[in-house]
Amino acid sequence: MDLNADLGEGFGRWVLTDDDALLRIVTSANVACGFHAGDPSTLRRVTALAAAGGVRIGAQVSYRDLAGFGRREIDVPPEELAAEVAYQIGALRVFAQAAGADVTYVKPHGALYHRAGRDPVQAAAVVEGAKLAGVRAVLTQRGSALDLQAREAGLTVVGEAFADRGYLPDGHLVPRGLPGALLGPDEAVAQAVSLAADGVVTAIDGTVTPVAAESICVHGDGPDAVAVAASIRSALDERGIDVEAFS
Amino acid sequence: MDLNADLGEGFGRWVLTDDDALLRIVTSANVACGFHAGDPSTLRRVTALAAAGGVRIGAQVSYRDLAGFGRREIDVPPEELAAEVAYQIGALRVFAQAAGADVTYVKPHGALYHRAGRDPVQAAAVVEGAKLAGVRAVLTQRGSALDLQAREAGLTVVGEAFADRGYLPDGHLVPRGLPGALLGPDEAVAQAVSLAADGVVTAIDGTVTPVAAESICVHGDGPDAVAVAASIRSALDERGIDVEAFS
Amino acid sequence: MDLNADLGEGFGRWVLTDDDALLRIVTSANVACGFHAGDPSTLRRVTALAAAGGVRIGAQVSYRDLAGFGRREIDVPPEELAAEVAYQIGALRVFAQAAGADVTYVKPHGALYHRAGRDPVQAAAVVEGAKLAGVRAVLTQRGSALDLQAREAGLTVVGEAFADRGYLPDGHLVPRGLPGALLGPDEAVAQAVSLAADGVVTAIDGTVTPVAAESICVHGDGPDAVAVAASIRSALDERGIDVEAFS
Amino acid sequence: MDLNADLGEGFGRWVLTDDDALLRIVTSANVACGFHAGDPSTLRRVTALAAAGGVRIGAQVSYRDLAGFGRREIDVPPEELAAEVAYQIGALRVFAQAAGADVTYVKPHGALYHRAGRDPVQAAAVVEGAKLAGVRAVLTQRGSALDLQAREAGLTVVGEAFADRGYLPDGHLVPRGLPGALLGPDEAVAQAVSLAADGVVTAIDGTVTPVAAESICVHGDGPDAVAVAASIRSALDERGIDVEAFS
Repeated sequence: MDLNADLGEGFGRWVLTDDDALLRIVTSANVACGFHAGDPSTLRRVTALAAAGGVRIGAQVSYRDLAGFGRREIDVPPEELAAEVAYQIGALRVFAQAAGADVTYVKPHGALYHRAGRDPVQAAAVVEGAKLAGVRAVLTQRGSALDLQAREAGLTVVGEAFADRGYLPDGHLVPRGLPGALLGPDEAVAQAVSLAADGVVTAIDGTVTPVAAESICVHGDGPDAVAVAASIRSALDERGIDVEAFS
Repeated sequence: MDLNADLGEGFGRWVLTDDDALLRIVTSANVACGFHAGDPSTLRRVTALAAAGGVRIGAQVSYRDLAGFGRREIDVPPEELAAEVAYQIGALRVFAQAAGADVTYVKPHGALYHRAGRDPVQAAAVVEGAKLAGVRAVLTQRGSALDLQAREAGLTVVGEAFADRGYLPDGHLVPRGLPGALLGPDEAVAQAVSLAADGVVTAIDGTVTPVAAESICVHGDGPDAVAVAASIRSALDERGIDVEAFS
Repeated sequence: MDLNADLGEGFGRWVLTDDDALLRIVTSANVACGFHAGDPSTLRRVTALAAAGGVRIGAQVSYRDLAGFGRREIDVPPEELAAEVAYQIGALRVFAQAAGADVTYVKPHGALYHRAGRDPVQAAAVVEGAKLAGVRAVLTQRGSALDLQAREAGLTVVGEAFADRGYLPDGHLVPRGLPGALLGPDEAVAQAVSLAADGVVTAIDGTVTPVAAESICVHGDGPDAVAVAASIRSALDERGIDVEAFS
Repeated sequence: MDLNADLGEGFGRWVLTDDDALLRIVTSANVACGFHAGDPSTLRRVTALAAAGGVRIGAQVSYRDLAGFGRREIDVPPEELAAEVAYQIGALRVFAQAAGADVTYVKPHGALYHRAGRDPVQAAAVVEGAKLAGVRAVLTQRGSALDLQAREAGLTVVGEAFADRGYLPDGHLVPRGLPGALLGPDEAVAQAVSLAADGVVTAIDGTVTPVAAESICVHGDGPDAVAVAASIRSALDERGIDVEAFS
């Protein structure tokens, strides 16, 4: 099982994620590329740390939206979106390669993650951008529009699940804002173990629901982020589950 | 002799340079990378055209300054500047490589060109950024701080001269704003021929002055830019001067 | 009848609209406020010219989107959108007041115009922003969501029609991209006269359709913009129609 | 004696200053206006809190530099800088006025503070921007270029001193990076009391040095910022020093 987190999400003076601590826990780093967060110096530092620690590097591509942290959907025409995705991958890759590694997957951030999860046009644009940049893998939820578009285009899809999000009995996430959308630290640890060991979650109605995932997302921001991520990692290690970057 | 021009200097709705016309004239394209101009779609289009036409692609790196079009000096700390230069090269390279070419040189834009021309610290930062990105050549004026730093670091320097700028007897440019700083179309053609054929310019006091250059810069913006550039190209062709990208 | 145009739509080095010429033709200036276009120096220059020429000044508020020129819809939460609208009005007002005038109306730009035309939430946010800034009038199409929200909030709505856009028999615009969406120069002049003199347009199927408008929008960008606007102004003047800012 | 602090220095998702806590301590709020920090929603919130608490509101104007947090000097031409200063004041004022207050002074931020402190051209541009916007007071160090330019232009200058910065015997600050440049919490409290009670500081060589100040700057960022500011406020209150906004 792979653990992934969003990293490098500061910008200049502003810091958000404890990149150093998280890079000792996760096996895949979704590195912000400058469009919602991530100044060039941070990209350089995070990719160097990731490469040194053997953590897989992915491009956390976003809408161009520093003011909104990439959390507002934008109706970017697909040909522009594809070019923006490729631009971000290229910018990140220069640092990954300088550190002796490479950018091996793409994970859309925030509103682009959600939009590409249901809109085949933007999903196809993300895929086109990844292919343009020579990236062959996409990290996203199984069954999403992005999953479908990526597989149709011949890319590898790494299915992901969320440690700290509640699930509906049909395998979808409980929408944010509804009761049960967010799990507490202990529940998150339990859900991560359940996902890794058995490929299931306990949905909010108690149903045991299969969720196919090769990677579990842990959150990098928030005051308890590092502690929760570390607990998840320890729990998986203790149960003898191999935690390593997806292949 | 190589001819270079600044290209792709629009941004979104705004267009500045007639990239299509200029790419039929020049042999090296200094492509804006998004920090002073150059949206991702433009980078994609210009690099595709350049690659198709056999025009060499360089990264026209800049301070992060859309509002000032990269024309205001900024006291960027060198480690940040190096990362910003590498970021821009990487972003452009993804499109160059998608078109079957690569980014093979760096030319700083505007205020960074001037600052790196006299400030060893920023010059060294530009060089570090180029090396970080694996780019091995710099296009700049002989004798500048950037020339020195680049050669000390083992990079290739391509010396450039300007067709439409007046020169002082010591080989420096007449500063903008002073009489004789800018040449008219006919003078620009004559100076380009003199540079290419004999390696000299006629300075503003009439002195014939040697200027070592493997590339001549023609300007891409302004209403007559394409016509002047075409005249220069024709004049060089007529005199049997090989116009081709530097090697 | 009032004539309005979008002005000040350059940014730094990039110029789009011939503000000087248009300010001699129109009676209301929708001045870009910096979010899709419009640097502070341009705001200062355009408001000074408008005030000197007795042209009414309005805030052409937009999504924060220089890269997309404000033409992509963005899902900005309403409380943020209201603050962004007020911010833009305040920034423009300082220059209007320095020139002895004021910002007396708001007209959303591009994608925000379209979104606020049909989405009551974003329409209400625009209205809230205007009220926050003490602006009491909105320039928009009659019957739009923005029209309704503005009137409910007690603001004055100035109805606008378009000289160079084709109309459907129900009074809506022919969507861009469909045949008949854009009128040629002669048709635009004829439609402006028909709107001003009789309050009607001839829809694409030949139906004479009432369109209530106190202001006609002429376009400020494009190679023929000034010539078409001047022709419209002349045609209205010749027919004895008072062309003056709405009151 | 007035206490001032820089507030509202987050941007979108990123938070830097604990505005709520600081607004219960200081008497003047230097509010970021969007160029180095400060999104419109934050401006709205901070001005509302300040107005409700009777805290004076000033515009903390900056170079346009989110990536550098306004900490890099930029060679902005003076006419552009004046317009940028006015733009920021206007944007902030709309929220101050909506809260029943106004923007009554200007304090440049970061690199602009330092540059305008020694460069008469940029200092004059800041003054021109303030006047353009109808702001009549400037908060800065006595003896700086900005002090001189502001007084020559007929503006009120409020002299400021720093609680937590070391001073040289001549009344200048110990440059950052040198020993003694930054004081610890206890020293900062003592220096604030000394400034307020006696108008002097103890310079790094032990010399008692007069520093004329009507306002003491306390820092708003950093983990201990609120605690130090609160200690300073308490110490002044205990000694019976009136802490109130300058008049």
